[in-house]
Amino acid sequence: MASRQLSETKLRRRSMSTSYRLPPLPWFGMDIGGTLTKLVYFEPSLDNAEEEREKVAHIRKYLTSNVAYGTTGLRDVHLEMPNVSFLGRSGTLHFIRFPTCSMSIFIDMAKDKNLKDLADMICATGGGAYKFESDFQSRLGMSLLKLDELECLLNGLIFLAERHPLECYYLPEPDPSRSDCLRQPYSLTRQSDCYPFLAVNIGSGVSIIAVRGPRDWNRVSGTSLGGGTFLGLCCLLTGCETFEDAIALAERGDSNKVDKLVMDIYGGDYELFGLRGDLVASSFGHMMSVDKRAEAKPEDLARATLVMLTNNIGSIARMCASTQGIDRVIFTGNFLRCNELSVRLLAHAMDYWSRGSIKALFVQHEGYLGALGSLMELVDPDSINNAYFTSEDGYKKHDFLRLCNIFKLLI
Amino acid sequence: MASRQLSETKLRRRSMSTSYRLPPLPWFGMDIGGTLTKLVYFEPSLDNAEEEREKVAHIRKYLTSNVAYGTTGLRDVHLEMPNVSFLGRSGTLHFIRFPTCSMSIFIDMAKDKNLKDLADMICATGGGAYKFESDFQSRLGMSLLKLDELECLLNGLIFLAERHPLECYYLPEPDPSRSDCLRQPYSLTRQSDCYPFLAVNIGSGVSIIAVRGPRDWNRVSGTSLGGGTFLGLCCLLTGCETFEDAIALAERGDSNKVDKLVMDIYGGDYELFGLRGDLVASSFGHMMSVDKRAEAKPEDLARATLVMLTNNIGSIARMCASTQGIDRVIFTGNFLRCNELSVRLLAHAMDYWSRGSIKALFVQHEGYLGALGSLMELVDPDSINNAYFTSEDGYKKHDFLRLCNIFKLLI
Repeated sequence: MASRQLSETKLRRRSMSTSYRLPPLPWFGMDIGGTLTKLVYFEPSLDNAEEEREKVAHIRKYLTSNVAYGTTGLRDVHLEMPNVSFLGRSGTLHFIRFPTCSMSIFIDMAKDKNLKDLADMICATGGGAYKFESDFQSRLGMSLLKLDELECLLNGLIFLAERHPLECYYLPEPDPSRSDCLRQPYSLTRQSDCYPFLAVNIGSGVSIIAVRGPRDWNRVSGTSLGGGTFLGLCCLLTGCETFEDAIALAERGDSNKVDKLVMDIYGGDYELFGLRGDLVASSFGHMMSVDKRAEAKPEDLARATLVMLTNNIGSIARMCASTQGIDRVIFTGNFLRCNELSVRLLAHAMDYWSRGSIKALFVQHEGYLGALGSLMELVDPDSINNAYFTSEDGYKKHDFLRLCNIFKLLI
Repeated sequence: MASRQLSETKLRRRSMSTSYRLPPLPWFGMDIGGTLTKLVYFEPSLDNAEEEREKVAHIRKYLTSNVAYGTTGLRDVHLEMPNVSFLGRSGTLHFIRFPTCSMSIFIDMAKDKNLKDLADMICATGGGAYKFESDFQSRLGMSLLKLDELECLLNGLIFLAERHPLECYYLPEPDPSRSDCLRQPYSLTRQSDCYPFLAVNIGSGVSIIAVRGPRDWNRVSGTSLGGGTFLGLCCLLTGCETFEDAIALAERGDSNKVDKLVMDIYGGDYELFGLRGDLVASSFGHMMSVDKRAEAKPEDLARATLVMLTNNIGSIARMCASTQGIDRVIFTGNFLRCNELSVRLLAHAMDYWSRGSIKALFVQHEGYLGALGSLMELVDPDSINNAYFTSEDGYKKHDFLRLCNIFKLLI
């Protein structure tokens, strides 16, 4: 089903495309998620025509010389990738984010900065590419090239894994209680076989994708208990306002004051099934007691919320990996941004419950894979023999050639 | 693993047992869970010896002539089962519960009422059988015959399914929005094959058991996001104090004011994967917004909590059923007590996501299966040829004979 419908997306896209091999700069890729909008901007090295210089300088003046935009936009300077060869050009990849609820402000700002004069189309993915398409068209006069978020995510992931030696990592000795766990680089592409792997993207909600080859993937599961649940519950329970505050609270809290452990019910281990006494039996189970509620501090509640959601995602991911016969799980998405605690919990849970048979992997640019992947769609399908679109198995041939084309440009 | 360790439990039990075929009345079974303690009392018809009459009258005076005990104990009169043939006797099964946090008060009361003079041993299951064993011994002078909670649950389930024609039911047309959904009785034992089925017990936490035959089962999964999580979160979020209040709030709330739906992110459906716009994309996802928090009422928060936890359990149960190749899922546990909404949500979710291939079943005595199952352990293994304990496959032979013995008494 995914492939057939993707094919239709491509055909819609093709009808929008113009005659250039690659569109003129600037190159933006956008991932408009349920909570955050992620923007990737490719800033080329200035070795080209005068017109391009002017555009780049115009954008530099605002976008790449600042790190904050308005009251909510931020550039993640630590993720910046200089000297990147991207679609045949050399330059720098910049990573910017703002809350999706500020989209109207963003559109006003883009209008104010005359973004329309620089580009008439933006590659966009995430649900917001659909939700806000008419706003971009009517208020900015710009088209959105709408792309599937999971396909973009995988393209962005593979691109980064191949170009950025430190992109993927794992924790050789995961320990939830130690904040100094070693991060070991993991070369996804240096392995004898990059595939299969499970991608677990934790955004507002969670999508789980089994990936068996470059274009061979399907969404196998998902859950609505994701990063949006963490932030929403923390705002309600602790009065915090931002994700960063919620994470900071969770880091210094004690979830054992909130959760009922196996030992709280059994007095020790539940031996018959090897359930240790210190495992959580009932998340928030202590909070039905007036006295325990009085003792629980905001940081304990934030920690319990984080532990509950992280363990639930880890458990579902492990079940999926096991069902699919896959032993590597790559966790992505902005829930893991500045969230070392969840990284440790996930790494530990995957290792513990699978008895070491499933490896948890993580990525540096966790929240930007979709936006980056959308940027990679800039390669114009019209540069490929259109006849491939009409043959019965045209989609696959087209895709294969499109990939060849991308790789040719990248090398 | 389960069988081996169960065998050890039995051997411990055997060493405690005395020489009678069935212990003298009264017969109590107890399931001491993380939140609630469930007590099943078998009140025999008065056709026996004078001493027994006195005991029964003594208990009747307090236990079966009241419906409330202390400030927190309650008898579920609507679940009472009169004219039951139980272990060769005829009588009535009574179902009583109180919060486990009141255990100390219960022990005081039992001492005050001289329970020790009536019985010197109680069959007990649940984690509290282990946690409170020494309290029962030191403060009451009573022994607890400790039994595994999942084994007891399954024994209680099969007993009720066979004896109570209306015990199991399903919803032929599950609709979460309709409170008048028809309940259709389902005869588990009348089917050509009772096994296999998946038992999903939702207490404070959740255990999932694949059951393939009378003694052929294993715990395949579980989650700490259970009934204790629902009550704990509702107490924190709404200020309610009891499970009944939390359920009443949830019944009149609107979770769409709290949760971010697919349409809130996509503007409509996420067509590529057939995800409808009205599905929850991010539980509590709206609550990161100050304005949305101001609009959300306690009943909306209770509803969102219930929907989140119920759907998560349903989703994990469906994955387990699918992995195990099982198409009937029986939901049990006190989370479903007075909780018609979760019953509808589970029935609908199982039907919708499995495209009708998995059937959700429910039971009337949802929270009392373990306590009832523990009562069934009264049949004394010493009445069986002890030689069976010493043979290599002795445990299975013993179990088979023990079951034969039970059924002989039941018929």
